[in-house]
Amino acid sequence: MAVKPLEDRVLVKPVEQESVTASGLYLPESSKEKPIHGVVVAVGPGKRLDNGTIATMSVSKGDTVVYAAGYGATEVQVDGVDHLIMREAELLGVIHG
Amino acid sequence: MAVKPLEDRVLVKPVEQESVTASGLYLPESSKEKPIHGVVVAVGPGKRLDNGTIATMSVSKGDTVVYAAGYGATEVQVDGVDHLIMREAELLGVIHG
Amino acid sequence: MAVKPLEDRVLVKPVEQESVTASGLYLPESSKEKPIHGVVVAVGPGKRLDNGTIATMSVSKGDTVVYAAGYGATEVQVDGVDHLIMREAELLGVIHG
Amino acid sequence: MAVKPLEDRVLVKPVEQESVTASGLYLPESSKEKPIHGVVVAVGPGKRLDNGTIATMSVSKGDTVVYAAGYGATEVQVDGVDHLIMREAELLGVIHG
Amino acid sequence: MAVKPLEDRVLVKPVEQESVTASGLYLPESSKEKPIHGVVVAVGPGKRLDNGTIATMSVSKGDTVVYAAGYGATEVQVDGVDHLIMREAELLGVIHG
Amino acid sequence: MAVKPLEDRVLVKPVEQESVTASGLYLPESSKEKPIHGVVVAVGPGKRLDNGTIATMSVSKGDTVVYAAGYGATEVQVDGVDHLIMREAELLGVIHG
Amino acid sequence: MAVKPLEDRVLVKPVEQESVTASGLYLPESSKEKPIHGVVVAVGPGKRLDNGTIATMSVSKGDTVVYAAGYGATEVQVDGVDHLIMREAELLGVIHG
Repeated sequence: MAVKPLEDRVLVKPVEQESVTASGLYLPESSKEKPIHGVVVAVGPGKRLDNGTIATMSVSKGDTVVYAAGYGATEVQVDGVDHLIMREAELLGVIHG
Repeated sequence: MAVKPLEDRVLVKPVEQESVTASGLYLPESSKEKPIHGVVVAVGPGKRLDNGTIATMSVSKGDTVVYAAGYGATEVQVDGVDHLIMREAELLGVIHG
Repeated sequence: MAVKPLEDRVLVKPVEQESVTASGLYLPESSKEKPIHGVVVAVGPGKRLDNGTIATMSVSKGDTVVYAAGYGATEVQVDGVDHLIMREAELLGVIHG
Repeated sequence: MAVKPLEDRVLVKPVEQESVTASGLYLPESSKEKPIHGVVVAVGPGKRLDNGTIATMSVSKGDTVVYAAGYGATEVQVDGVDHLIMREAELLGVIHG
Repeated sequence: MAVKPLEDRVLVKPVEQESVTASGLYLPESSKEKPIHGVVVAVGPGKRLDNGTIATMSVSKGDTVVYAAGYGATEVQVDGVDHLIMREAELLGVIHG
Repeated sequence: MAVKPLEDRVLVKPVEQESVTASGLYLPESSKEKPIHGVVVAVGPGKRLDNGTIATMSVSKGDTVVYAAGYGATEVQVDGVDHLIMREAELLGVIHG
Repeated sequence: MAVKPLEDRVLVKPVEQESVTASGLYLPESSKEKPIHGVVVAVGPGKRLDNGTIATMSVSKGDTVVYAAGYGATEVQVDGVDHLIMREAELLGVIHG
């Protein structure tokens, strides 16, 4: 089964907190329970602009992304694994290296 | 009887939770009672843009769609069967396979 | 006496709940008291767009329309009969057949 | 003394509830105390659109108009008589006949 | 000392309530304490529109204007006299005669 | 040390209340503690408009400006002296003479 | 590990309060605990405008910037060091000298 996000949404598979700590990027004490980065599994076609054109997505399948925990995302399960669907604008950055 | 949605709305026939579990996509514990995917039964003409043109709908009749349970949708019954009318932007993604 | 709606408003004469049930379309338990469809009695000229032009109305006099009960509409009586004035965007769909 | 409304505002002289009942148009029980129609006494030049042009007013001096009671209007007295100043968009419709 | 308002603001010198009553225009009981009309002492250059141009002000120095008491205006004293600075859109109308 | 404001912001050095009273411009009783005018020390490049161009600032370095006390401004100290950074739109007017 | 901000966001490494005092710029008593300036470590591509083009960022890597403490920023750690990701519009100014 596959989910194709609509508009400017992305489907993200969160990375477990343990590996987050290993990579050296995590949120402060109060929000430690929730993962804050993940891997982009699928992207939508892009945001429809006021003039009717569709903007290019700023992330691609396979990108590791940072996002604020517990805000603006909907949790779904795909084949028994927790995923998140959120709008591209909810993503804070892309992790390299 | 048929209902033709207006503007960028879609008429969706929800899929029962049992089959949802079977297909491997469901919401976490707290929202298990409500179905989160359904089949598009009818679509409106599309959103009117600021420049007066009408945007193409991003889903079609027959698509299986994911949406957040209990938010932004109006429940109606068509020939005794529960349906939902919601705006296209409420849909999170389309399910394939 | 006649009321000509302004802007993108429509004047709707609600259809009684009994006939609603008969036609097979009604709201769930909690909102059963209020009719949710009606007949368009008069329409305004249409919404003025940002560029100054007037958009065409998406419903016409005589259409049977669905709308969410008790939201965004103003109740008025015309010649002793209850009517509603609401904006075109409050209408969810048009009923055929 | 005369008041010339600014922008897309209208100066309305409310019609007494008694005559409202006579003409067959009134609000339901809860809002019976306030008049809901009146006569347009003066109109502003019109709404300034985003592109800098001024839109034509949709009502004229002398029109009998319907509006929702007690919302979005400022009460003023002109030569000892109660009037209302409100924006054109607050008006629901024009009464004919 | 002179104050030149910025953007679409106007500097207004309120007219005392006594003279207001004399001219036949006042607010209802609840708001009798505050003046509701005044004389425009200075005007700003005008509102900057989305396309970068500046709109012409709809009132001029010397105009007697009506405004809703106690809302959206900042009180300042110029040479010991109470004045108000407010945006042009806060003004309801211009009084003639 | 110098601070260059970003976008349409201005860096303002407030003028002490004593001198404010001397110049004849002050706020009413309730807000007497805070200065309401100051001198513009530095200005940003200007507001970016929807069409991508940058609007010209309406005030310049050296202007004496009026603003509403305690609203929409961030207090900073530059070389030990209290200053305010606020957006150009927070300024009410420019004082001359 | 490196984080590339998305859209008009910047990754900022806050400067400790001690050095802030040394440079002569700090917030008043109530907010002394939080740093209010920092160094830009990475910038996003820029804000997407309504017409689909991308605006140029107003700050660059290496700039020392001022921002309001504790508002509109998300705290992240990069290689064990606290950083902030915020939108360009949250930055108040750039410090020179």
